[in-house]
Amino acid sequence: MKRAAVILLSGGLDSATCLYWAKAKGYRLEALAVGYGQRHRKELRAARRIAAAAGARFTLLRVRLPWLRTSSLVDAGRRLPDIPLSRIGRGIPSTYVPGRNAVFTALGLSLADAVGAELVVVGANALDSSGYPDCRPEFYRAFGRVARTGTKRGAKGQGLRIATPLISKDKAAIVRAAVRLGVPVRMTWSCYRGGRRPCGRCDSCKLRAKGFAAAGIADPAL
Amino acid sequence: MKRAAVILLSGGLDSATCLYWAKAKGYRLEALAVGYGQRHRKELRAARRIAAAAGARFTLLRVRLPWLRTSSLVDAGRRLPDIPLSRIGRGIPSTYVPGRNAVFTALGLSLADAVGAELVVVGANALDSSGYPDCRPEFYRAFGRVARTGTKRGAKGQGLRIATPLISKDKAAIVRAAVRLGVPVRMTWSCYRGGRRPCGRCDSCKLRAKGFAAAGIADPAL
Repeated sequence: MKRAAVILLSGGLDSATCLYWAKAKGYRLEALAVGYGQRHRKELRAARRIAAAAGARFTLLRVRLPWLRTSSLVDAGRRLPDIPLSRIGRGIPSTYVPGRNAVFTALGLSLADAVGAELVVVGANALDSSGYPDCRPEFYRAFGRVARTGTKRGAKGQGLRIATPLISKDKAAIVRAAVRLGVPVRMTWSCYRGGRRPCGRCDSCKLRAKGFAAAGIADPAL
Repeated sequence: MKRAAVILLSGGLDSATCLYWAKAKGYRLEALAVGYGQRHRKELRAARRIAAAAGARFTLLRVRLPWLRTSSLVDAGRRLPDIPLSRIGRGIPSTYVPGRNAVFTALGLSLADAVGAELVVVGANALDSSGYPDCRPEFYRAFGRVARTGTKRGAKGQGLRIATPLISKDKAAIVRAAVRLGVPVRMTWSCYRGGRRPCGRCDSCKLRAKGFAAAGIADPAL
């Protein structure tokens, strides 16, 4: 049986690139998407389509955390911020979802330990990010220790790692990697809003546009 | 406003003792129980009653993880093991729920970061335990680093810690602590089965009985 990897798949460009990164390495793909009450369903539909395109098994989990209303990414009654590109990543914006990546990564670990996967792949990116604490390399290093110490595979010495292949790449490098790996980029959805077309004003749209511009590639999703 | 603590509350003796430990320290209490498809609801009902008795805010979260069917604690079609007391804790039994405490602790972190709590209290116990990897001190030390690096409170230096006050206590010491702290012990439910009375045969019943016997106290729940 092929070695397996769990990939946290949001439907955005970064996690789709991780999925195809693991595919290129020959892993059996277990894609995990989490509906936590985000403002729109568009990214989860994108995740499902991308998983199918990659030949991954797809699990959509719904986890309603009632306390997440503090985030503008969850509470549609809050205004999404419009931050100039040069100031994105300084300070923690209102779109921060408390402990989100800890919960997602733990869910990935749980799935990995249950199905015998040796890797949990997370598309976190510290460089061109919104400044979320749970996108930093030291957070994933700490979670690597959690994986080694708190799972059956880890305790048996079979290995269970957290991989963050994009953590120190800039968006232009991610765009180039996506194209190289054959990611169906037009299927990805990065925008925090769920309109017919990406809004162009949220952090995620701005960072994505910057990446495509710097890579000299036209965004096929636009 | 009082400093707050999130307590992972299962309805068993250990987590109830943690709740009263935090109460004795003067924390505002945020009790979090998770329904993950355990064989019975009895422990969740116990958790709700104990939280009310302690004056804690109580949140019950339902998180159905379809892959947990590998555990006999979740899949009622599997036989629960009957392990002699002297062999409990050697090897990982079929009741192990993959990554459960990682998911629970991450959910606790998320709640703590959302409500501004400085502590997540987990009733894990390494000494008189079933041998689960996610009950070991090194796992919680690693999660402490996750808390510091991956949360808003941690990133701002406000502190967000994982406390495991029972981790190195034996069951007799936990029983004595429970009585001293005023835990309503008769409300707690430790048995893996959800019968009218504790079965006396599962790991959890055996460890509990051992603790009461060694402490020289009669179990008021029997």
